[in-house]
Amino acid sequence: MISDLQEILSINAKGMKKSAIRELLKLTKDPEIISFAGGLPAPETFPIDELVGITTKVLREDGEKALQYGSTEGDDRLRELVAENYIQEGFKITKDNICITTASQQGLDLLGKIFINRGDKVLVGLPSYLGGLQAFNAYGVEMIGIEFDEHGMRSDKVEEVLADLKTKGEKPKFIYIIPDFQNPAGVTMPEFRREEIIKIAKEYEVLIVEDSPYKQIRFEGKDQKSLYALDGEGNVINLGTFSKIFVPGFRIGWVIAHKDIVDKFVMAKQGTDLCTSPFVQKIAAKYIEEGYFAKSLKETIQNYKEKKEVMIAAFEKYMPEGVTWTEPEGGLFLFVTLPEYMDAEKLFPKAIEKKVAFVIGSVFHCDGSGKNTMRINFSYVNKEKNLEGVKRLAEVIKAEMK
Amino acid sequence: MISDLQEILSINAKGMKKSAIRELLKLTKDPEIISFAGGLPAPETFPIDELVGITTKVLREDGEKALQYGSTEGDDRLRELVAENYIQEGFKITKDNICITTASQQGLDLLGKIFINRGDKVLVGLPSYLGGLQAFNAYGVEMIGIEFDEHGMRSDKVEEVLADLKTKGEKPKFIYIIPDFQNPAGVTMPEFRREEIIKIAKEYEVLIVEDSPYKQIRFEGKDQKSLYALDGEGNVINLGTFSKIFVPGFRIGWVIAHKDIVDKFVMAKQGTDLCTSPFVQKIAAKYIEEGYFAKSLKETIQNYKEKKEVMIAAFEKYMPEGVTWTEPEGGLFLFVTLPEYMDAEKLFPKAIEKKVAFVIGSVFHCDGSGKNTMRINFSYVNKEKNLEGVKRLAEVIKAEMK
Repeated sequence: MISDLQEILSINAKGMKKSAIRELLKLTKDPEIISFAGGLPAPETFPIDELVGITTKVLREDGEKALQYGSTEGDDRLRELVAENYIQEGFKITKDNICITTASQQGLDLLGKIFINRGDKVLVGLPSYLGGLQAFNAYGVEMIGIEFDEHGMRSDKVEEVLADLKTKGEKPKFIYIIPDFQNPAGVTMPEFRREEIIKIAKEYEVLIVEDSPYKQIRFEGKDQKSLYALDGEGNVINLGTFSKIFVPGFRIGWVIAHKDIVDKFVMAKQGTDLCTSPFVQKIAAKYIEEGYFAKSLKETIQNYKEKKEVMIAAFEKYMPEGVTWTEPEGGLFLFVTLPEYMDAEKLFPKAIEKKVAFVIGSVFHCDGSGKNTMRINFSYVNKEKNLEGVKRLAEVIKAEMK
Repeated sequence: MISDLQEILSINAKGMKKSAIRELLKLTKDPEIISFAGGLPAPETFPIDELVGITTKVLREDGEKALQYGSTEGDDRLRELVAENYIQEGFKITKDNICITTASQQGLDLLGKIFINRGDKVLVGLPSYLGGLQAFNAYGVEMIGIEFDEHGMRSDKVEEVLADLKTKGEKPKFIYIIPDFQNPAGVTMPEFRREEIIKIAKEYEVLIVEDSPYKQIRFEGKDQKSLYALDGEGNVINLGTFSKIFVPGFRIGWVIAHKDIVDKFVMAKQGTDLCTSPFVQKIAAKYIEEGYFAKSLKETIQNYKEKKEVMIAAFEKYMPEGVTWTEPEGGLFLFVTLPEYMDAEKLFPKAIEKKVAFVIGSVFHCDGSGKNTMRINFSYVNKEKNLEGVKRLAEVIKAEMK
């Protein structure tokens, strides 16, 4: 009853926190603020004209099915098309290894639903994607943070933790990895590190969850094979999404996994939202089929590459001594490290005053570390604003340094 | 790891069952089968032409926002429009009492997430909507079934159970009620019964969840005020959806509740799918704004009214003595009771042989009762097929009676 609401909440709900990012985003509604805070794709990459044509076609040719309930596992044609892309990358899959989700955030939620009992452990990066931490947290997970080096999650630390847990007769439910242009760290894990972690996971019999929303957005350097493809034995669950490579507004993602695992996702999804909108799924499928997807993705990559270059140049020009940043080969983010004595959280209100926003790095650290770090998005605003925003941010940092 | 998948599942996932309905629906893909099994709206009610125009407008006028991430609570304009409809019905709400969900199935899932710890109790109807049972079950709920009379859930039984629990120092998290044209029973709860249950719930300090996806589809008789409006104190959570009154393919539903409760839904939804597709939300808002919704709803009601009449006439003509059925004043379903000695589950494969399908009633009963009942949908197929299907079904029942 509403009078004792706090009391009757589930234990998990009592432990839920509003996403710091989404709360911060509200602050940034002020049009004068240059926001590096969100992980939003650039609106100018949205193929509005093409979608008018495609949507009309879908409604005219397949409207009765597009507007009806669909199957829980997702639209057959879309699953085939998604599978084709991954098969080219070396995945040994068919459409039956795919369950369409209501964007990859639902994939993360279903992972929790399927695997996590209150108190279960999972291994996550230090840092790691906040939406993942939030989704697992909603199931009462206990997170063990694994330190990073320049190649991403440290395999020696993974082994150390697994060995330690083993002596206690325990093992985590999975290892959560964002291998490509990691959010927030911007680091890409090289194949040798992927192989090391796959080997360790196999030895300790632990599943790997590979969350890879940006893999296709590579500006330079060599593509690193997916953990799913490298493993080849169904011990990796791969999460993908259209949110960063097409449009987030459709809320379409997918889980790629061994058929037995896909089966569990389908079962869990049934009770969660029955199915993802067949309307948007059919639009996405038609969009790919007609060749628009490959073309617009190329343009998106070029757009973000240019924005990243402008931003890196601005960092080099304006940032004071003692501030460092990652130079990602793709994706949407830079990760910035301030001198150890500084606290990004204290900097935040001052940055807002100067009309520039970022995300404080500590929210990506399950152990609360990373106080002197921040995540900077370069995909959303235009190049001029990227430049101007970095200038403002550098001033705020310099003022704080004095 | 995939080799010990069964072992590493969460306790809740181990207890999940695939929806009997959705599995049965697969059987009915045979185009020769007349399916009364699903709860699907009639495809001829989908406003395809209007949606071509509306969708084009949304993309042209508001494409950058429609294709971007949206707020977790939902599109402001859509929430205003939904609120307006309910305000006319006597709800004292604003848009801030509404959280848009990825159809009402997500509302049910979030209810579980927010309130249910493993072993917690909720009161549900005997029978009750399978998707609700399934969503709560995924959180390890213990369901207490409340018997029905001709007015729906029996208030005396509700009080009996609550009193009994109280002596043990327990109380359920909520009472789950589908008051209008109940799925599957087809019964509408009259206002006096609603008032009785509200009073009892208040006395025992238990929340009520009112799930009402069909309320607007009334063919005849007097509209009964919502429990939410009758209560007026925020102790009722109301779930609504466009799935039966517009299109299910958009996957748009909503939760109406006290602001403090809406806040919990928003928080839980963040980790679940971030937001419901702004694209479909903006299309729905524009569709309502331009006056199409009110018009097409009228046509849908007329369509289903005629189908129901044909079906009732067919039941009267073909069904043997001993078979009874509800005559709903609205909604999508008839509920059929066979003689006590009969078992609808045994009848099912024989019906499939004769190319007609239904849902066995026992799946709607949390205690496994209702073996001699079945749910019959009349909205999906056309009138001729409704007639022919009842004829086939009557033959199967008669053959089984001998």
